[in-house]
Amino acid sequence: MRETPFTRLRSGFWSRIDAAESIALVSHIDPDGDAVGSTLALYHILRAYGKDVNVVTRHAVPKFLRFLPGAEKFTPVRAASGIPRPPDLVIVLDCSDPVRVGDLVAVIEAARDVIVVDHHRDEERIPGFHVIDETASATAEILFDLCSGKLSRMPESAALALYVGISTDTGSFRYGNTSARSFRIASELIKAGRLDVPLIGKYCFARETLSRLRIRGEIYRKVVIEDNLIYGVIRPAELEKRGWDIQEAEGVIDDLALCPEVEYAAVLWELAPDYIRVQLRSVHDESVLEPARALGGGGHRKASGARIRGASLEEVLERLKRELRGVRPQRVRA
Amino acid sequence: MRETPFTRLRSGFWSRIDAAESIALVSHIDPDGDAVGSTLALYHILRAYGKDVNVVTRHAVPKFLRFLPGAEKFTPVRAASGIPRPPDLVIVLDCSDPVRVGDLVAVIEAARDVIVVDHHRDEERIPGFHVIDETASATAEILFDLCSGKLSRMPESAALALYVGISTDTGSFRYGNTSARSFRIASELIKAGRLDVPLIGKYCFARETLSRLRIRGEIYRKVVIEDNLIYGVIRPAELEKRGWDIQEAEGVIDDLALCPEVEYAAVLWELAPDYIRVQLRSVHDESVLEPARALGGGGHRKASGARIRGASLEEVLERLKRELRGVRPQRVRA
Repeated sequence: MRETPFTRLRSGFWSRIDAAESIALVSHIDPDGDAVGSTLALYHILRAYGKDVNVVTRHAVPKFLRFLPGAEKFTPVRAASGIPRPPDLVIVLDCSDPVRVGDLVAVIEAARDVIVVDHHRDEERIPGFHVIDETASATAEILFDLCSGKLSRMPESAALALYVGISTDTGSFRYGNTSARSFRIASELIKAGRLDVPLIGKYCFARETLSRLRIRGEIYRKVVIEDNLIYGVIRPAELEKRGWDIQEAEGVIDDLALCPEVEYAAVLWELAPDYIRVQLRSVHDESVLEPARALGGGGHRKASGARIRGASLEEVLERLKRELRGVRPQRVRA
Repeated sequence: MRETPFTRLRSGFWSRIDAAESIALVSHIDPDGDAVGSTLALYHILRAYGKDVNVVTRHAVPKFLRFLPGAEKFTPVRAASGIPRPPDLVIVLDCSDPVRVGDLVAVIEAARDVIVVDHHRDEERIPGFHVIDETASATAEILFDLCSGKLSRMPESAALALYVGISTDTGSFRYGNTSARSFRIASELIKAGRLDVPLIGKYCFARETLSRLRIRGEIYRKVVIEDNLIYGVIRPAELEKRGWDIQEAEGVIDDLALCPEVEYAAVLWELAPDYIRVQLRSVHDESVLEPARALGGGGHRKASGARIRGASLEEVLERLKRELRGVRPQRVRA
């Protein structure tokens, strides 16, 4: 094979694995589809490769991903104390920011060797051997290239997990990270894993519940567009009074951000009368990071948030609108 | 190239095109993403191939698809009278049922030759040369295989239109028709058309409006689960009173069908006090065609409907529940 920067990374990746007796896989806290998918895929691949490998995690696999073979390997441990002995090699997946691994950073620091495989653009990076590709739609996409051809056959469970990583991180092949390469790899994974695509789609995306529909109903009917902002308000106390699960309100912001009429989407949560959580999304291309920072929060360019104490919902809303108005000519809409 | 059943179809397809001086493209009424995408793609390809080609349609391109180059070619005509002279060849796309082309059937009957390209399982078929592949996710997928390699380069506008056909008909690569082949073709189209996937996703899927959110809010907050059915009620008169666009309520049924807790989803429209429209979807695998037929309607196995005169909403609901209960052990849920 012709030597390219990637083949050099690939052989570095495998020589480190070959040199290790024991391997631990670590991903970020609150693991999502790509974190879980990448971790389980590599778990199955390294097992088939004959390695002693464990998943070290702070959180269990979210309910909707428990259909993945090996999901039970995500047994939450308490930092380093949960592991019998420090592994020779820790592979950190879908995360390069030390803050995003929580107190598992101690596990990483105790390891003899560290590999980081990620597609995020983080400023601070966990030290180690880095396989970072920001053009990849998901860490699962990078892992596919690192691992394919290494075994005589990719385990079906690994193909499934990688597919779930790519599919969830691209919002089912719609977000800006989706590329010809994502589609090509998805096609190969379907064949390798004999995957039931619609069933996976149901697990990953078709997750309406009566409670979630009703909560969204309550919020959507009162949604407001003002200037360049669409916003909704969530009052957890009210939802609780009706016996609804507050967690089901979590995705509301993503629906509001599907509104091309505006630049920004926000959800304001009245956690207490003077304690407001703000979720912010960019609908087109404006950054929401600066407005979030101005409110004392943070996050990413296209998704950010803040928690504000000592201000009412109305006050926070006014401050938010002032921050957002700074950026662009307003589009007023009654 | 080795001769296969498909290569025979492909050469039959092109020899008919070669033999025709004038070609008209026809698709079904109320054209969707695949109907519009397939038609415009073939329009661009046949133009580049040097053919005299027209689109003959009863309906304009829906608003969200007007970003497609050539969308203005969908200029609605009134049956055969709108065409100066009968074309040598009519190519019917994404439709093989004569009923689904409406009165354009007269245009088809006037042509010297007819090709039908479709991926639906229709019982009655428009007579002609058939390229039917029920395993294809979309007519656009069949057209890709029929046309690729025929020109030195696929026009970018055609690649875009084919991608839109596949992407909309698979619900962005999530429905049961999605296959390794769909992904492979999508990957090739992205390269051929230099496509901006997230922008296409925004046009095709990110179409929330304030009005649509509020309408869904009104409906979702009162959604009910009973036995194996989730249902919502739409009262167009009420929506109109609030100044909302009834058309925006059209997709509600698809959200209800994302609820894995039940077997069936229904939306009941009270068009008038004793005139009820029922939309039905199968959530898992049960057929909704028989219940729809029992109510005097029809449709497909997984999506059907009926319009019932002379019965109140409550009466129709009771009849519907009786029909659905016949099929399976009930799952009662308060």
